[in-house]
Amino acid sequence: MKLQTPKGFRDFLPEEALKRKFVLGKITEVFEKFGFDPLETPTLEYADTLKGKYGEEEKLIYEFETKGGDQVALRYDQTVPLARVVAQYGPNGQQVLPIPFKRYQIQDAYRGENTQKGRYRQFLQCDADIVGVSSPLADAEILALVFEIYKQLGLEIVIKINDRSLLKDIEPKYLAALDKLSKIGEEGVLKELEKRGLSATDAKELFDGVQNFELTQNLTAIQDAYQQMGYSPDSIQFDSTLIRGLNYYTGLIIEVVLKSDPSGSSLGGGGRYDKLIGQFSGGDFPAVGFSVGLERTMKAMEEARVLDSPKTSTKVLVTVFSPDLVNQSLETIFLLRSKNINAELYLDAQAKLDKQLKYADSKGIPYALIIGPDEAKAGKVVLKDLQKRDQQSLSLDEAIQKLRQ
Amino acid sequence: MKLQTPKGFRDFLPEEALKRKFVLGKITEVFEKFGFDPLETPTLEYADTLKGKYGEEEKLIYEFETKGGDQVALRYDQTVPLARVVAQYGPNGQQVLPIPFKRYQIQDAYRGENTQKGRYRQFLQCDADIVGVSSPLADAEILALVFEIYKQLGLEIVIKINDRSLLKDIEPKYLAALDKLSKIGEEGVLKELEKRGLSATDAKELFDGVQNFELTQNLTAIQDAYQQMGYSPDSIQFDSTLIRGLNYYTGLIIEVVLKSDPSGSSLGGGGRYDKLIGQFSGGDFPAVGFSVGLERTMKAMEEARVLDSPKTSTKVLVTVFSPDLVNQSLETIFLLRSKNINAELYLDAQAKLDKQLKYADSKGIPYALIIGPDEAKAGKVVLKDLQKRDQQSLSLDEAIQKLRQ
Repeated sequence: MKLQTPKGFRDFLPEEALKRKFVLGKITEVFEKFGFDPLETPTLEYADTLKGKYGEEEKLIYEFETKGGDQVALRYDQTVPLARVVAQYGPNGQQVLPIPFKRYQIQDAYRGENTQKGRYRQFLQCDADIVGVSSPLADAEILALVFEIYKQLGLEIVIKINDRSLLKDIEPKYLAALDKLSKIGEEGVLKELEKRGLSATDAKELFDGVQNFELTQNLTAIQDAYQQMGYSPDSIQFDSTLIRGLNYYTGLIIEVVLKSDPSGSSLGGGGRYDKLIGQFSGGDFPAVGFSVGLERTMKAMEEARVLDSPKTSTKVLVTVFSPDLVNQSLETIFLLRSKNINAELYLDAQAKLDKQLKYADSKGIPYALIIGPDEAKAGKVVLKDLQKRDQQSLSLDEAIQKLRQ
Repeated sequence: MKLQTPKGFRDFLPEEALKRKFVLGKITEVFEKFGFDPLETPTLEYADTLKGKYGEEEKLIYEFETKGGDQVALRYDQTVPLARVVAQYGPNGQQVLPIPFKRYQIQDAYRGENTQKGRYRQFLQCDADIVGVSSPLADAEILALVFEIYKQLGLEIVIKINDRSLLKDIEPKYLAALDKLSKIGEEGVLKELEKRGLSATDAKELFDGVQNFELTQNLTAIQDAYQQMGYSPDSIQFDSTLIRGLNYYTGLIIEVVLKSDPSGSSLGGGGRYDKLIGQFSGGDFPAVGFSVGLERTMKAMEEARVLDSPKTSTKVLVTVFSPDLVNQSLETIFLLRSKNINAELYLDAQAKLDKQLKYADSKGIPYALIIGPDEAKAGKVVLKDLQKRDQQSLSLDEAIQKLRQ
């Protein structure tokens, strides 16, 4: 048996899992502060639901036939399931979903990517979308949401925006070339445009044209509402060369970059897509949303040293001094937990104290509590700070107070 | 395109998703209070990792070949992935996992069950296990964990326990018959035993023998430690007829039932399995754990009326009185959120107030905030309690105080 995960699939051991939980907790808090509620859809959808929705990327879908003969596919993104949910439960379906529908969704996507490029085949998506509103107020809400998420995570960002309607007359193959600007520079883009069939003159004209696009009325209205809420105009930057790959965008498009690295890779993106959801259910379902790029965001947090979640959620290891003093440790662990202190009991009464302390150290537990014969007699405990390497003899109440700090 | 999920797979719309989040939050809190840290494993494992581990049930595994030619399978439970993780990262592997390893894991399992029996094919498992300790202290810790979980969830339970070693000489086919006692009664079990090859006399003798098994030394030691921690002996009940299906148990076995319905179906179960993990990595990895039956637990909470999570996490809808008063609403929503109040802005400035209030009602948002021309002039807001159907004119500070209660 192979003792490994399939290629492109990862385990998250406790330290990493706690980091993710910490970051996701903060993101969820902001989603809910903005009036988004959670939605969960199943890992498997009928393959027909996903097919014909992702263009060329469709080949990356994990698809298979169940023993019962159903053609199913693993979740590829959260936008198509959202469209199905709106169609199934919304005004043209079972009518149990109020519109506007504001939902957040934090679930895994599965894509058969080339792992040589360092890509993962299972990765968490964190999306928030507003369905059923075409007003620029909704776009401004998304911008405010984006700003607050990264503020909450401790990152200083700039939100690059553009209006996809400016680009609507440009052929997709030329857009794909223009989209590479940050990677290959002006010269590279011009070459690429020529390779795709434009004359040198036309390529230059198209390139310069895009550079000189101006803010649309739509973007102005969005920015006005955003500023009226109290956000600084500095946090937004109009960038007429911003394109974003996906073809379904129809208006505002967004990409988030670090203020300190504005040409670096984006930490998340989104935009307005007014036609996609209606394709499922018929009717008019304008939508705008944003997706946090969790991996890159966590990487940026680590680099900025603002991701300092502890190695363990456990605050203290209650050691067992010797088999005849185990009852003191059992009573103490109960009391600590009843005071809402995350506490682990060392579960082998025969183990030497030194081994127990080494275990606490290797797990990153910050404190150890020791009840030896002297402490037991005096009704005290020894609280050892494993980082500072010092210890104090305290009453249990005093120890609890210290652990709560 | 089918506007539905595959059979046996479910969507969780916001109200249901919030309920799950509420319950899982409480369970996680207790897991961490007991010193368990989170582990996540991927949805897909190599099929070889899962095969040969689940006996006859193996036919329920979702297995397929990827386009890259890997034979993979969807997570079937969390115990086999745990065994792989211990083998891969533990002392016989990469040596990055401290032993004892205490982990909790809350992820979906996938099983191709018969949906006619009302079973789901994707369902969340909530497991906590201690790997690497054979001491009865670990078993007692699990009993304490179980008691605290259900206490935290507001349910009065009894923990039925038995020692699987009492049953080790009974052939599996007879165990399977004895396991049906709660469903088919004594007479049924006796018939079943005869059907499976015992004479009437031997069947009766076996049945009576099991009824009269007595508490083992092991169970006594576990119970002593449990009581020493401060738990009442009443919360535990020795039941020599408790069997639990899985063959890998070797010692303590546990099932949780409601105190008010002790013969009802169990809300969760677990036990000690000292041989399973070593099968992966070699070496000696005794283990004991527990799994919360989330569906049945949530059902019991609903019946006991202790699952009263709100329909939405949003506290207040900030309405837009008219297009010329939209700025007041934008400023207000910013202030509410800066005070950590979950607030939604109605995103269509043209909509009639009545429509906006109906939307808040349909979403279950408890309050609506209105800023009409009079309020705007007087620097006030109207806060409408949508449940009590009354409203007050307040300063924004007063409104914030009320919303925070």
